[in-house]
Amino acid sequence: MMAQAAIPLDIRIVLLATDRDESAAQVVPNVIIGSPDDAMALAALAGQCDVITFDHELVSPDLLAHLEDDGNVVWPSAASMALAQDKRCQRVELSRARFPVPAFAGIEDMAELESFAMNAGWPVVLKAARGGYDGRGVWVVKDVADARVVLERARADGTVLLAEQWLDLELEFAVLVARRQSGQTAVYPVVETIQEDGICRELCVPCRMDEGLAGNAREMAVAIARQIGSVGILAIEFFLADGQIFVNELAPRPHNSGHWTIEGACTSQFEQHLRAVLDLPLGSTAVTTPAVATVNLIARDTGIGPRERLASSLAIPEAHVHLYGKNARAGRKVGHVTACAETRSAARQTAKRAADELLGQR
Amino acid sequence: MMAQAAIPLDIRIVLLATDRDESAAQVVPNVIIGSPDDAMALAALAGQCDVITFDHELVSPDLLAHLEDDGNVVWPSAASMALAQDKRCQRVELSRARFPVPAFAGIEDMAELESFAMNAGWPVVLKAARGGYDGRGVWVVKDVADARVVLERARADGTVLLAEQWLDLELEFAVLVARRQSGQTAVYPVVETIQEDGICRELCVPCRMDEGLAGNAREMAVAIARQIGSVGILAIEFFLADGQIFVNELAPRPHNSGHWTIEGACTSQFEQHLRAVLDLPLGSTAVTTPAVATVNLIARDTGIGPRERLASSLAIPEAHVHLYGKNARAGRKVGHVTACAETRSAARQTAKRAADELLGQR
Repeated sequence: MMAQAAIPLDIRIVLLATDRDESAAQVVPNVIIGSPDDAMALAALAGQCDVITFDHELVSPDLLAHLEDDGNVVWPSAASMALAQDKRCQRVELSRARFPVPAFAGIEDMAELESFAMNAGWPVVLKAARGGYDGRGVWVVKDVADARVVLERARADGTVLLAEQWLDLELEFAVLVARRQSGQTAVYPVVETIQEDGICRELCVPCRMDEGLAGNAREMAVAIARQIGSVGILAIEFFLADGQIFVNELAPRPHNSGHWTIEGACTSQFEQHLRAVLDLPLGSTAVTTPAVATVNLIARDTGIGPRERLASSLAIPEAHVHLYGKNARAGRKVGHVTACAETRSAARQTAKRAADELLGQR
Repeated sequence: MMAQAAIPLDIRIVLLATDRDESAAQVVPNVIIGSPDDAMALAALAGQCDVITFDHELVSPDLLAHLEDDGNVVWPSAASMALAQDKRCQRVELSRARFPVPAFAGIEDMAELESFAMNAGWPVVLKAARGGYDGRGVWVVKDVADARVVLERARADGTVLLAEQWLDLELEFAVLVARRQSGQTAVYPVVETIQEDGICRELCVPCRMDEGLAGNAREMAVAIARQIGSVGILAIEFFLADGQIFVNELAPRPHNSGHWTIEGACTSQFEQHLRAVLDLPLGSTAVTTPAVATVNLIARDTGIGPRERLASSLAIPEAHVHLYGKNARAGRKVGHVTACAETRSAARQTAKRAADELLGQR
């Protein structure tokens, strides 16, 4: 999707991909095949680029720091990438800067956990500090016995754990903010993120929350971007609980929670990210429609992928279908559908109908 | 722009390009280098494709007919392509089917021209039946002496001429209609096309014309698409003169007059064309904004191309910049800018400001 946004601005993309079958490699002519963990591959990429950026965080901050030391422009920076990869560091950094985060603690053993639970109460949320996504690496434990199972497994496979206060969520939402090196920022409206089993299923704009709180969240997003020196898109996931907002996670790149911006905002998050990392003026983040909804396509184990069901989804004339060119392995995000409408429920209904067609759920 | 629209639908493009520097070849991974006049190159393309389509009309209908005979799916068809290439054939076909066209005649010599002018009056518009575009191949002659110069030059270089009644134009407009082989059609709103020296400079939706006439034009566009068996996008250019509409020209492909649909309509003409030629359900043609304007970037001979002026144009936050990756040879269309707004004049102003920045006209 970033490559797509680069076309009209005549920005030439050089892609480092591990495999010719990767989504991005299917649509970018200039591809270097190699691993992002391979210093040689990164150097080859750097040799062809003015700016290096990312569509995922799975790149070693140390290797990126070397690229920076060699004079390459890398956005997000090695430091932002390190922060993005470690939930515990994020919490520490954010709470030190006095942004509201759920109560948390690093947990080495049962004694530490029990002491944390004494203050925060049960249940406790345990998270792998690194590598979790889409609900993986998160465990809600209701008591000591439950917790012991998770801790033992974590010790066995070397997972560093973070304990977090359990919040009775009213809803989850996200804010995307773009920032240029020269300091200009542009913040998108709050988007409601509807999760199921820890996977984001749906996005809705406008978000069902108090406008004052939404404004606070947007201001906070800009402040966080400044605080961590973010350049590019920074996606910030929030919780709303007990009428208060809490920062959950940061992702320093175009993010699933921003996919609605392709049709629903004046400037898509992908174009905005390119503008930001190239230090070009940022575009308008205004919403272009009364309501917009995005439904993620989580593949099911049916043997027939969304690509084979394209025609029936296109029969819903206002739905915008986005397929990622991925194998439809069960549980994998393989695309999304966005709809714009006069009302939130109409937008959701259209997007959901098309998504159901693509997944064979009708 | 068609390749860009193919990405979210996971439609794989194989491109036949004469040169690696061509716009499309810059953004499509799978490129066959060859001439569209070369039967071998066309056969190589056909061997990799389910459907063959075009972004220009400069392909021999005879070669396309061979491809069709060999069982390939070619849209627009060889017959549509032949019609698109010959303005005289278009006029004959359209007037035979009783669509309103300006009075016209094929002209072989001065006697025929004088006889035509006797009925139609002076001035007369002379057009090359084939190959003209952007104002090239059109001459307005005010009398016999003027006409003789054009006829002599035409005879010398073998140009077949068409004479046309001169109309006192109120405005020019276009209608795009998509049609699938299975018969479904989708017609876009009327777009006003603002020409200067025969080159389209600007597009505006809504068009400043009577709604009843606009409705007639849209119905006529659908009827013409059916009449000629068009599959894909058909762009139809119209004149409005003396309160009447006249069909001017047909182009059986995504067309400059449809570039506003990328941001201004629910489904862009490029996505719509792909859907139509693949016989997939057509998308909504609804306009998504009160007003939309597109300004073409006609390169000037300044030595600095729009690419180098990108930053200043992006500083106009609501402008959508589209660069085509072409060398900025003077007089060439090298991109366009679109803006959506509450009013037509606001949209025009935003698009024009960004275009002026890109062309160094401020």
